[in-house]
Amino acid sequence: MPPALIELRRRLAEVSDLESLGQLLAWDQEVVMPPGGAEWRAQQRATVERLAHERFVDDRIGELLEAAIPESELDEDLIRVARRDFEQARRVPPELVEELAHASATGHEAWLRAREDSDFALFEPPMRRNVELRRRWIACFPEAERPYDALLDYYEPEMRTAQAEDALGRLRDGLVPLVEQAAPADDALLHGGPFPVDAQRRLIATILRQVGVQPRQWRLDDAVHPFAATVSLDDVRLTTRYAEDDLDSIFSTLHEFGHGLYEANIDRALARSPLGTGVSSAVHESQSRLWENMVGRSPGFWRWCFPHLRAAMPERFGDCTWEDVHRAVNVVRPTLVRVSADEVTYGLHVILRFELEVGLFEGGLDVADLPEAWAERTRAYLGLEVPDHAHGVLQDVHWAEGLFGYFPTYALGTIVSGQLWCRLNGDIPDLDERFAAGEFGPLADWLAEKVHRWGRRLTPTEVVERATGGPLDPGPYLDYVRAKLAGASAGLIA
Amino acid sequence: MPPALIELRRRLAEVSDLESLGQLLAWDQEVVMPPGGAEWRAQQRATVERLAHERFVDDRIGELLEAAIPESELDEDLIRVARRDFEQARRVPPELVEELAHASATGHEAWLRAREDSDFALFEPPMRRNVELRRRWIACFPEAERPYDALLDYYEPEMRTAQAEDALGRLRDGLVPLVEQAAPADDALLHGGPFPVDAQRRLIATILRQVGVQPRQWRLDDAVHPFAATVSLDDVRLTTRYAEDDLDSIFSTLHEFGHGLYEANIDRALARSPLGTGVSSAVHESQSRLWENMVGRSPGFWRWCFPHLRAAMPERFGDCTWEDVHRAVNVVRPTLVRVSADEVTYGLHVILRFELEVGLFEGGLDVADLPEAWAERTRAYLGLEVPDHAHGVLQDVHWAEGLFGYFPTYALGTIVSGQLWCRLNGDIPDLDERFAAGEFGPLADWLAEKVHRWGRRLTPTEVVERATGGPLDPGPYLDYVRAKLAGASAGLIA
Repeated sequence: MPPALIELRRRLAEVSDLESLGQLLAWDQEVVMPPGGAEWRAQQRATVERLAHERFVDDRIGELLEAAIPESELDEDLIRVARRDFEQARRVPPELVEELAHASATGHEAWLRAREDSDFALFEPPMRRNVELRRRWIACFPEAERPYDALLDYYEPEMRTAQAEDALGRLRDGLVPLVEQAAPADDALLHGGPFPVDAQRRLIATILRQVGVQPRQWRLDDAVHPFAATVSLDDVRLTTRYAEDDLDSIFSTLHEFGHGLYEANIDRALARSPLGTGVSSAVHESQSRLWENMVGRSPGFWRWCFPHLRAAMPERFGDCTWEDVHRAVNVVRPTLVRVSADEVTYGLHVILRFELEVGLFEGGLDVADLPEAWAERTRAYLGLEVPDHAHGVLQDVHWAEGLFGYFPTYALGTIVSGQLWCRLNGDIPDLDERFAAGEFGPLADWLAEKVHRWGRRLTPTEVVERATGGPLDPGPYLDYVRAKLAGASAGLIA
Repeated sequence: MPPALIELRRRLAEVSDLESLGQLLAWDQEVVMPPGGAEWRAQQRATVERLAHERFVDDRIGELLEAAIPESELDEDLIRVARRDFEQARRVPPELVEELAHASATGHEAWLRAREDSDFALFEPPMRRNVELRRRWIACFPEAERPYDALLDYYEPEMRTAQAEDALGRLRDGLVPLVEQAAPADDALLHGGPFPVDAQRRLIATILRQVGVQPRQWRLDDAVHPFAATVSLDDVRLTTRYAEDDLDSIFSTLHEFGHGLYEANIDRALARSPLGTGVSSAVHESQSRLWENMVGRSPGFWRWCFPHLRAAMPERFGDCTWEDVHRAVNVVRPTLVRVSADEVTYGLHVILRFELEVGLFEGGLDVADLPEAWAERTRAYLGLEVPDHAHGVLQDVHWAEGLFGYFPTYALGTIVSGQLWCRLNGDIPDLDERFAAGEFGPLADWLAEKVHRWGRRLTPTEVVERATGGPLDPGPYLDYVRAKLAGASAGLIA
């Protein structure tokens, strides 16, 4: 291998190792760290992040990117993706990075208090500061056609605001009437409990084994806010949380499994390089939502899973059928809070936030006007009145930390999951029967081949087009929801 | 603060953070990592070690050490210790560091096979390579009066081989006749079990709570080879192991607690600097051995602990007294294997290794002659015949990994623990009564004040002299052992 390429790979591997360490530090803090270590841990994390950034934006990397002569397509992909990342990272001056980090920490603290008191006035000044700093960040990317393009591109490379507006607008226009028409339904079976936590743990261990989780490469632990961490491609750590009065742990675990499986299936040849991770936030989210919803709420899954559920909690489920549970996990009912939304209304929560973000950065929406704009859209999309800010504009941490451009990827991921699901059912016509037999391997293999193994070698658009046969399109997802709701109205949903 | 000092502190904090990360990566690998991650973890650890080294030996640190003007005694100590470390670290060329690391890994692999087959011939070539490389390492320190001085100084700053030979020779000459005269004693009470692991866990949780372990700053986990890791001064992680057929877990946990307590009590002002860790291997070992032996085998400890032991395992200990247990945990009986040696013979195992190391590097002892030299000394010091290499020269991993100069610090630590114990009993005359009442706070406070809080601000010699009132001296430890054995012979040891 030519020396420039060797050195480039070595330096990129070092940065990649530091990023993996960041994942480990975060996982450790949430899962096992004694709480007294928090103050030092913040400094350790800052050190690792700073070093990863410094080593990556080093002039030498720029020289090597110019000098390296690719010997294979893999090398070409590596140099292309690394150059893109390098140019992006060099655009933002270190002082601004530090100001953003500081404002994020301050905003987080203020948000905690503001949400507790449902007091928007406490939140407004740090939020204003976050928006102002993010405008300066946007200014580092003057080639962006629209300000929001720079925000979105950070999470969803090459996606333009106009595309997102089009796709999410069509999704919104499809969902709003569906939600309005959704039949009232009874999901009491899944609420109130008691669902003993030990029984939930056993059930989830059974589910994860069945979908392909091996202890040699995976862990599952408890965390307050579930997440997945990839410490290496052979060390993927899921977290979940249990409540005695619901069974959300099942869906939350499948969600994180979807994220983890993506990373675990990436081609080993891409490890320790910028290519060795998921390609975008939306494609990642398409994986988590596919496992959480398309799989976890399917008839086949519940035909397989129900005997295990009944065995784990015989008092509760002894007298019912898989059809009862399947019906209950598919209930649609508008709620005020995104994180407890059902599968169908979830997208509307996200679209609301996306539209307000575009308003803030492009449409003259003032921070002071956010609560009113929030209430209006909640009325229009979900048919609900916002009773207080804690159940409205203060419910999410993202804006408090200066995170803008991320929300839309949740709904874009949903759209992609619908396209993948449609194609999957074409390629594997008996998919639901396979689930009923406890066979999740064909699904996992298809995803590995079409999506996972590529890492970042393809662009997000290429991944979606190659896997689904077409461009971003909310149609298949809306069809999936329509079929489900029609079945429920007709009493057909199992 | 003057700018050079600020930058120096910042850079040293970064190196210190990377070293803490190394501790976390090692802990994680031993305790929670899915085994599939091992290959990537080796690379992550190598990256962190290389970065810590590179950032520390950077020319800029040298310039700052020259330019920084101390404003306090603390600054002076910081600059002195950092300069010592810097000069040492710059002496060894990176190529040699890499060769040593590679030979260490190769040696470890060869040792595993050699020990399994008890075949010294498999071990001889990598051992010879380790010795040869270590001679080149020694040559990087030409100012050392004797070759072994360079090895010893790495673990025990400012200790000379001649001092160690003197102290350990006196310890050996004192111990050999004591071991020969040790009364035959019965410790069947502690062997064979069954000692249910769950009961041991509960007992050890009780003990750790009583000696001062708080969940806010500590963890205890299982590991194959127990160790203590300091992820930060407020995040100290102990590990232990349990066997159904003995109660070694108690002593192993107290040993690691001794190491952990040292680090946990270091002055917070020294954190994230080269001052913020234990001062030397011997002083560290004095802490672990003090808790393991002086405390863990004392009458007072067992007067307090016995009711908890009996409550945890009533079938086994229902019919006996605290005196029975105390007698059994103090039995002296020569054995072939260091890690299962009793408190008294342990020192002789270590002295044997120290003498052979000095022979290898200074006395013309050839690697091929190690087995014979080992057998001779085992006969002379312990009165035992070595039946095979696995129970002889191949029992420890240290030499396989090229670790020379570390063994003597185990016995030097024992000597220091004897001196500290003597002084402690002078300063707190009712120490044993306090233990009997479950009061370990006075002991912990004394150690924190006299030893722990200083970190590396004092030299090891200063720590020992200030805390014990005199220089390194095996006399107090021998007196402690003599009193214990005399009590046992006279039936007086409780």
